[in-house]
Amino acid sequence: MFRSEGWRSRKSAERSAATRARVRKKRSQKKGLPPGTPVYIGKERTGEPKISVMGYKEEQIHEADRATPDSLATLPKGLTATWINVDGVHQVEAVEQICNLFNLHRLVVEDIVNTTQSPKIEDYGEYLFVVLRSLDYDEQQQEMVSAQISLVVGASFVLSFQEKEGDEFLPLKERIRTAGSRLRKSGPDFLAYSMLDIVVDEYFSTLEKVAEKIELVEDELVTNPSRDTVQVIHKLKMVLIGLRRSVWPLREVVNKMIRWESKLVSDQTRPYLRDVYDHTIHVADTIEMFRDMVSGMLDIYLSSVSYRLNEIMKVLTVIATIFIPLTFLSGWYGMNFKDMPELGWKWGYPMVIGIALSMVSGMLIYFWRKRWL
Amino acid sequence: MFRSEGWRSRKSAERSAATRARVRKKRSQKKGLPPGTPVYIGKERTGEPKISVMGYKEEQIHEADRATPDSLATLPKGLTATWINVDGVHQVEAVEQICNLFNLHRLVVEDIVNTTQSPKIEDYGEYLFVVLRSLDYDEQQQEMVSAQISLVVGASFVLSFQEKEGDEFLPLKERIRTAGSRLRKSGPDFLAYSMLDIVVDEYFSTLEKVAEKIELVEDELVTNPSRDTVQVIHKLKMVLIGLRRSVWPLREVVNKMIRWESKLVSDQTRPYLRDVYDHTIHVADTIEMFRDMVSGMLDIYLSSVSYRLNEIMKVLTVIATIFIPLTFLSGWYGMNFKDMPELGWKWGYPMVIGIALSMVSGMLIYFWRKRWL
Amino acid sequence: MFRSEGWRSRKSAERSAATRARVRKKRSQKKGLPPGTPVYIGKERTGEPKISVMGYKEEQIHEADRATPDSLATLPKGLTATWINVDGVHQVEAVEQICNLFNLHRLVVEDIVNTTQSPKIEDYGEYLFVVLRSLDYDEQQQEMVSAQISLVVGASFVLSFQEKEGDEFLPLKERIRTAGSRLRKSGPDFLAYSMLDIVVDEYFSTLEKVAEKIELVEDELVTNPSRDTVQVIHKLKMVLIGLRRSVWPLREVVNKMIRWESKLVSDQTRPYLRDVYDHTIHVADTIEMFRDMVSGMLDIYLSSVSYRLNEIMKVLTVIATIFIPLTFLSGWYGMNFKDMPELGWKWGYPMVIGIALSMVSGMLIYFWRKRWL
Amino acid sequence: MFRSEGWRSRKSAERSAATRARVRKKRSQKKGLPPGTPVYIGKERTGEPKISVMGYKEEQIHEADRATPDSLATLPKGLTATWINVDGVHQVEAVEQICNLFNLHRLVVEDIVNTTQSPKIEDYGEYLFVVLRSLDYDEQQQEMVSAQISLVVGASFVLSFQEKEGDEFLPLKERIRTAGSRLRKSGPDFLAYSMLDIVVDEYFSTLEKVAEKIELVEDELVTNPSRDTVQVIHKLKMVLIGLRRSVWPLREVVNKMIRWESKLVSDQTRPYLRDVYDHTIHVADTIEMFRDMVSGMLDIYLSSVSYRLNEIMKVLTVIATIFIPLTFLSGWYGMNFKDMPELGWKWGYPMVIGIALSMVSGMLIYFWRKRWL
Amino acid sequence: MFRSEGWRSRKSAERSAATRARVRKKRSQKKGLPPGTPVYIGKERTGEPKISVMGYKEEQIHEADRATPDSLATLPKGLTATWINVDGVHQVEAVEQICNLFNLHRLVVEDIVNTTQSPKIEDYGEYLFVVLRSLDYDEQQQEMVSAQISLVVGASFVLSFQEKEGDEFLPLKERIRTAGSRLRKSGPDFLAYSMLDIVVDEYFSTLEKVAEKIELVEDELVTNPSRDTVQVIHKLKMVLIGLRRSVWPLREVVNKMIRWESKLVSDQTRPYLRDVYDHTIHVADTIEMFRDMVSGMLDIYLSSVSYRLNEIMKVLTVIATIFIPLTFLSGWYGMNFKDMPELGWKWGYPMVIGIALSMVSGMLIYFWRKRWL
Repeated sequence: MFRSEGWRSRKSAERSAATRARVRKKRSQKKGLPPGTPVYIGKERTGEPKISVMGYKEEQIHEADRATPDSLATLPKGLTATWINVDGVHQVEAVEQICNLFNLHRLVVEDIVNTTQSPKIEDYGEYLFVVLRSLDYDEQQQEMVSAQISLVVGASFVLSFQEKEGDEFLPLKERIRTAGSRLRKSGPDFLAYSMLDIVVDEYFSTLEKVAEKIELVEDELVTNPSRDTVQVIHKLKMVLIGLRRSVWPLREVVNKMIRWESKLVSDQTRPYLRDVYDHTIHVADTIEMFRDMVSGMLDIYLSSVSYRLNEIMKVLTVIATIFIPLTFLSGWYGMNFKDMPELGWKWGYPMVIGIALSMVSGMLIYFWRKRWL
Repeated sequence: MFRSEGWRSRKSAERSAATRARVRKKRSQKKGLPPGTPVYIGKERTGEPKISVMGYKEEQIHEADRATPDSLATLPKGLTATWINVDGVHQVEAVEQICNLFNLHRLVVEDIVNTTQSPKIEDYGEYLFVVLRSLDYDEQQQEMVSAQISLVVGASFVLSFQEKEGDEFLPLKERIRTAGSRLRKSGPDFLAYSMLDIVVDEYFSTLEKVAEKIELVEDELVTNPSRDTVQVIHKLKMVLIGLRRSVWPLREVVNKMIRWESKLVSDQTRPYLRDVYDHTIHVADTIEMFRDMVSGMLDIYLSSVSYRLNEIMKVLTVIATIFIPLTFLSGWYGMNFKDMPELGWKWGYPMVIGIALSMVSGMLIYFWRKRWL
Repeated sequence: MFRSEGWRSRKSAERSAATRARVRKKRSQKKGLPPGTPVYIGKERTGEPKISVMGYKEEQIHEADRATPDSLATLPKGLTATWINVDGVHQVEAVEQICNLFNLHRLVVEDIVNTTQSPKIEDYGEYLFVVLRSLDYDEQQQEMVSAQISLVVGASFVLSFQEKEGDEFLPLKERIRTAGSRLRKSGPDFLAYSMLDIVVDEYFSTLEKVAEKIELVEDELVTNPSRDTVQVIHKLKMVLIGLRRSVWPLREVVNKMIRWESKLVSDQTRPYLRDVYDHTIHVADTIEMFRDMVSGMLDIYLSSVSYRLNEIMKVLTVIATIFIPLTFLSGWYGMNFKDMPELGWKWGYPMVIGIALSMVSGMLIYFWRKRWL
Repeated sequence: MFRSEGWRSRKSAERSAATRARVRKKRSQKKGLPPGTPVYIGKERTGEPKISVMGYKEEQIHEADRATPDSLATLPKGLTATWINVDGVHQVEAVEQICNLFNLHRLVVEDIVNTTQSPKIEDYGEYLFVVLRSLDYDEQQQEMVSAQISLVVGASFVLSFQEKEGDEFLPLKERIRTAGSRLRKSGPDFLAYSMLDIVVDEYFSTLEKVAEKIELVEDELVTNPSRDTVQVIHKLKMVLIGLRRSVWPLREVVNKMIRWESKLVSDQTRPYLRDVYDHTIHVADTIEMFRDMVSGMLDIYLSSVSYRLNEIMKVLTVIATIFIPLTFLSGWYGMNFKDMPELGWKWGYPMVIGIALSMVSGMLIYFWRKRWL
Repeated sequence: MFRSEGWRSRKSAERSAATRARVRKKRSQKKGLPPGTPVYIGKERTGEPKISVMGYKEEQIHEADRATPDSLATLPKGLTATWINVDGVHQVEAVEQICNLFNLHRLVVEDIVNTTQSPKIEDYGEYLFVVLRSLDYDEQQQEMVSAQISLVVGASFVLSFQEKEGDEFLPLKERIRTAGSRLRKSGPDFLAYSMLDIVVDEYFSTLEKVAEKIELVEDELVTNPSRDTVQVIHKLKMVLIGLRRSVWPLREVVNKMIRWESKLVSDQTRPYLRDVYDHTIHVADTIEMFRDMVSGMLDIYLSSVSYRLNEIMKVLTVIATIFIPLTFLSGWYGMNFKDMPELGWKWGYPMVIGIALSMVSGMLIYFWRKRWL
């Protein structure tokens, strides 16, 4: 009780930092600009974007690891699919240059460099534009870290733009390199599906991290609930809300892709998309379950605080109720009246001892019957 | 009050175990694998899977109890329905071998061995793929135990894959053996319906177990609410959420089957499916009612905790309010001033007794009128 | 406060009885039986079912009050409608025999004797099968008493099966007997509508009973909230949930009947069904309003408990804050130091009286300004 | 605190009266009657209903103020619209007579005199039947006063039946009398629309009254929250629920009227109906906002009660924590042991004064750092 | 604790002002007027409305800054688009005059001057009528300030009417002046889209202001929760509800515009509208997230109030439980019985010291084990 002093300021600094991060991606800087003007909105990041190219057909593969926007103009033709992966969208000009090569609508360019998009899919006739979000749970800050991945799926190409440093799609490259793999035999739609699959699979590990945190907090709740527990529960709630915001629209994205009457999605790929759709539903369901668990934890916290107040008050009441009457009794015979006959009685003191003992035992019986002891 | 010491650590161990079980079926081990790669995800289980075969038409029956995947290649032809029941999906190769015999899509194989699926139905043209979940309430751990059952329904065969040890469908075998039974006269769709019916019927007994637990907790709430009661209520909530997660998609599964424009579901079977659909709705309704009951129990718990705090405070207040003024009174005449005239009065002591008695009776009247006594 | 002892066990016995009643209608006894096997599920009831027959056309009427299933085989032909009312479905064989006479699907027979159905309507081509529930509020037990009524509506007959003893449809019989009444002129669909109308009209009186109970509890909440009040509120909540479970599907039943493209429902009857539909909506709305009222009552209860705690604490605080400092003051001059100059002063005692009075009046002014007095 | 005695019974009487009023419109009296039997259900009202007739075409107008049902048989022909307004539906025979003149379905008659209907619209081919509810907020009783208005809109006539005394549609009459007004140029559909418009416009003033009450309660909540505040909040909630029950179905009524493929609604009138529809949406939105405000008020009330409890406990704790140790100190040296060396010391008394002062200042510093002072 | 006096009246004045503002835009003044009668409903505003005209085609531009309604009659013909912007709708006659020039329906005029409309879109064949609301967060009053913007989009003109002083669309004018800009090349639909875009972009800055406020309150909640915090949270809730009321219908407006089968919206503009639609969804999502955050803050507040009560009670209980028995002990030996043997014992006083010390240490150990220290 004497150590609760510090809670006022302890958490304040880090918390503001976290909230500020959430707001840092400022949209307002775009106010007044004509629509379709690409402006990078996202975390500050420096350095050249890494551009890699992979073109393949069943029996042939073409790879270029450190391509420049200029070098893309002369890509080999006649391949089943050409995949250009851009790692870093902070250089608006590079992104614009690549998009112009493929004749993309300028709203697409704007959306690629504005990394605050929710998952969505748009049909531009010649190509599909898909926005995904990769999610990771930062156990230190107890926050969701989310990054945008934009895909452009054409008849013979896939462009992927990743906001975050570090390539999510490395295992995919390995699978393309394996001759005879299904990826090599299929078109750009299957490649896009494989990316979707990787992103959704990652959600499962994120969920497992969150599950571990929930488990920890549940234990803490039972063994040692402290004032911070509510803050932690609140943070978990916000994490789950964040997750939900990315997963629910993703469901719609996949669903639309399955139902799309576009030649860009082949019938062989649809059952696979249906599979991803099931996964997103599974993820969404788990998030809902976690939300129920977390809001249940708040109930437990509140009722345990109430319960402990009861316990504390019981202790106080028992002590006070036993000793206050006794104190009165002893105070009574501490009065200095000249004429208090009891004080002179021979059995006066034993009588008072007797009264005191019977008061105590009466109280104890009363409390015992009330089950307060 | 002196025995509340232990609650901090009592529940901790078993609880973590339970939460861990929930997470144990790790999806993350699949990350990075190409889609359609079957990996067993589920509780560890060893031993050979038990494969049984039953082929029948109205006047003939063929049975094999301990079949191997190899022996299935030479099944008798010309029967109305052949039912292959596989008890144990932990041996991925065996499952794959059987599925290949019937030419199933590899996503189906993947889903059969991944036992974390929600109920669903998928139409692959030549066959329907149905995922069900059997549910049981573990009264000891106060948790839902759920196991996956996958059905593949073709024009002349039914494959059933059960995750859990112990055959759910034993009574069904008996009914098939009975010559002249409706099952013998009907095709694979009626067999699949009968399985659905058994699974849903089991839900009713599960619900009855949960109802008994709710009843117990309701009684405890009235007679002896303890700190653990909230935990138990929370667990019941989670159990009901778990139930709901299996039952709601099942409703959709059955509904889709009824409306399916597939030759695999005959018109004679549809009224029976409608009957199962009614049952799932009944189960879902009961779950919702239980949820309402359980959340009502939390309200009762909290209000009873508040009420008891009131009771405790009343006792404290009555005792303190009666004796604190009396203690002051007696303390007053315990002062050692040389010159306190009252101390020398003849009627001083009786006067003080009179004051004390009137204070007590005044307070008692006040409390009685406030209905605190 | 000294009479709150008994609450621990008072309610326990009757409550368990009530909950057990809810579960008594055990579905689990059906587990493993082939579908379509009729098993009576419902309250135990003995004695022969009462079967009455009424056949009529505009100018003619045929009545038989204590018919047997066998006697039904020879019913007069050529009537507009024949109504067979069976009061008691606990004798499965009798029900089966009657149903076979009219060639009903065996799932219908199963549903008639399983009295746990929710309201529903099913079209079997030759006849409509409708399940209704009559509802009554048992003010003693504070519970909903619900009984199943099953209707089979054919082109020239209506079968009605009532679970509960006592005939709901007596006024209907009187109206049929009245020559020239609309019932006599109309077909079986209007008879079925009239039954629906009676059942729904009964809901209004049930709601009025519940309204009276709500009124009582609201009064109790204001005049004398006790610990049981929460239990009563909880029971009211459960009653309303029970009501809702019967009324919501009934809405759908009536709605489907209105839209049914079946020759069994004539266009003359549809406006009347629309009228019943309005009534069910009215009932459903009223239930929702009652639910809002009841959950508002819980808020009032909790806030009044909080408020009273505040009141109690104010009393304690006022008393303690006035007398504890005074007690200290008098204790101070009760010390036995040889050398306490104040004790010898002439104005010592009056000075202490002055201090005490100013302390009391200071406190009183403080509390008065804080509006605690 | 000493004046809270009366709250137990103060509100009881008026409250029951209010609840009883809600139930007074007894539906149960209709039980058992054949459907389509018109029975007046509503507040008791005596006196003749006032019937007024207004027939008009662009250049001509015919008015009769105190018509009788009989006199209606001989209305002038060849007018654009004839409007019969009946003020009072408690005389069932009069209503029946008028309805028979226009050949209305008997369910319409039943609905007109049963004043517990929700807003609805029904198409009887030759005429539309519309039920509206006028709403007023009774600031005294803090309750919604609602009355039914039934409209029958035919090709050349409008019948309006008002439950409540006092004609809502007086301004309308004035507008009809004005030659050249749009009403005179348009048909019965525009007249009906104008009535709808008046009813919905009235909702805005009702909402303004409720807004003022909310404002009052918000102020009270901040300046002087009392125990009754919860009751008032609860009543506001019920008022808003009542409002909602009338406004939501009205939205549907107007929406249906706009989409109606009936020659009774002309294309010129549809934009006006769309305008009314916007108003109903605005009303519905405002109600939802008020509901959010009112439920927020309950949160504020509860948290302010909690906060004040904290304040009270702080006062008690500060006083008790400062004086209880001091009282012990002085009591200690009030002991009568023969052999207490401190009592004889020369600096004994000053030492005790020093200890007491340092204890008080230590406590004060502690509380000041905990920000309790 | 001694400074909480003032809270009763501090907030009262400003709050009523705010609530009154919400109600000030009185709809009731329109009651009884014929529909389509334009009456200005909005904040009082004086001065002439500012009317500006901009006509343009790709190579030509015509501008007039301080036009009068009369001067609009003679606008140059043959331009792609003519934009008339009216800043101030409080002069009903001016608005009416302009609308009549373009032959607008009188309901449109009524809606333009009634500034309490929700966002909506209406198709009048020859023109679209769109109502938008600009939103700003007044950080001082902690309230949403909302103003109506009405657009009329015809085949060759756009009329914009702004309630608020100060032109929102200034940047747009600049962009039109730039020869070669997309606006100059496109028709009125693109101009209308650009206005929509500006309004929605403004929402992002409004949201950022709200986010900052939320951040502030979150910090306050952790460092120094006061009684006002609940009021602030409640105000934030109301702000978010206000935002939601404007944004949700706007979504529908944009969605309808995208799907509109009208020649007034060209296919080139649709992708841009889809972009705005995404933005509105983003805004709506963020609002929902903020709502979740704010309601979580209330939970934190309440649980922190409970937690602090626990802390306070612990302090009181520890102090009282330690000293009350000690006080009794010392009071006991302050009794004045003639015959108390302990008082005469040589080791009497040290014995009492020993008892006191062991009582204190026993209590301290007990509290330490209960983790109250």
